Amino acid sequence: MMGCNMNEMRFLEIKQDIFGKNNDAAAAFRSARKEDGMLYIDVMASPGAGKTTLLLTIMAKLRERGSQDLAVIEADLESDVDALKIKEAGVDSVELNTRGVCHVEMGMVEKAFAAFGSTSYEYLFLENIGNLVCSADFDTGAHVRVMLLSVPEGWDKVMKYPPMFSIVDALVVTKCDYLPLNPDFDMNALKKQARVLNPDLAIFAVSARTGEGMDELTDWICAQRQCILR
Amino acid sequence: MMGCNMNEMRFLEIKQDIFGKNNDAAAAFRSARKEDGMLYIDVMASPGAGKTTLLLTIMAKLRERGSQDLAVIEADLESDVDALKIKEAGVDSVELNTRGVCHVEMGMVEKAFAAFGSTSYEYLFLENIGNLVCSADFDTGAHVRVMLLSVPEGWDKVMKYPPMFSIVDALVVTKCDYLPLNPDFDMNALKKQARVLNPDLAIFAVSARTGEGMDELTDWICAQRQCILR
Repeated sequence: MMGCNMNEMRFLEIKQDIFGKNNDAAAAFRSARKEDGMLYIDVMASPGAGKTTLLLTIMAKLRERGSQDLAVIEADLESDVDALKIKEAGVDSVELNTRGVCHVEMGMVEKAFAAFGSTSYEYLFLENIGNLVCSADFDTGAHVRVMLLSVPEGWDKVMKYPPMFSIVDALVVTKCDYLPLNPDFDMNALKKQARVLNPDLAIFAVSARTGEGMDELTDWICAQRQCILR
Repeated sequence: MMGCNMNEMRFLEIKQDIFGKNNDAAAAFRSARKEDGMLYIDVMASPGAGKTTLLLTIMAKLRERGSQDLAVIEADLESDVDALKIKEAGVDSVELNTRGVCHVEMGMVEKAFAAFGSTSYEYLFLENIGNLVCSADFDTGAHVRVMLLSVPEGWDKVMKYPPMFSIVDALVVTKCDYLPLNPDFDMNALKKQARVLNPDLAIFAVSARTGEGMDELTDWICAQRQCILR
């Protein structure tokens, strides 16, 4: 409800209050996970962009490289469909049901993380709510923020939903096996426009189905962990 | 930010205040458009589910049936990409940029509608913000609410995003030409689960690309207009 015209003054006060507390909690969480040597990645996208499938593929790649200590916080409005898929793959997961709330904020992250107990992980992923708008506004305490855009969604989303493209560290273009069916998907225009919004953005074109681009993306994720261990 | 745990009491007050005012304005707008003989349809979906393409196809079908007086309010966080596409098709359109706000509410609808001047239309469409979460909470004064779910998004979204499925009059499953590529898309399970949430839901399976299902959907839209003319 941010930016509502109605009651704008009252909203502004409460927004500052909420974001201030959330940002403080996020900074503390980020720092604590760095101390643990745990890279924490927030994965954001529209519903159906392929977050769960991509995570399963990344985790298989990380295991091949010797990282066995992996965990996922699965955020959804309702249901535990995705958490079960992750568990079936033998990875620790906690379902975070927001009960209709459109984003994840720190109180939720802290509760979900506590549910893992004292286990130590090398990589912790948050599969955020499917929402290309609201999640951009809330710091979830992650070291790295990644967004997915699937080929069937269309490249022009970069023009319609600029905030998300502006705040992430990496853009992963998913379902690239659909490119032959989507001749209008202009990858060069997407990259160009995304880097106007966010010059330092890392961009990967992948298909979890064919494996295309998955090694490069996994390399980048491993490099991010090296950064927090320094 | 609805349902936030922080400041819950303060939020509750403001929520009631905002929703109350919005609902009153929506009811008045709905009633006025009925008096005008103008069917007003709110079209909601995730980003990239095919809203604009579906609207262009519906409007071509309505024109074939003799309805020439059509208009579209195009809501986006930013840009006028979609409004231009609609204008190119020779249909009146107004761009409603929410400047980052995650949903459309009545103040915005009233302003956008006023921009059409005194022109009378048979059908007015709102292409809502691409957001499967927040739009479900805001009455935009429409007579009919329609949601799209595209095949590449996956059928299980009905379990993860139940509010939207619960409040719409029709579910349009788009991009059905992708079904052969998505053997896991369980149309029967989707229909069954959607009707558990919403027993009166009309469901259409369409492809704007091949034309599949578009006549049935257009029939239903025309029937909705007959309802408001009675």
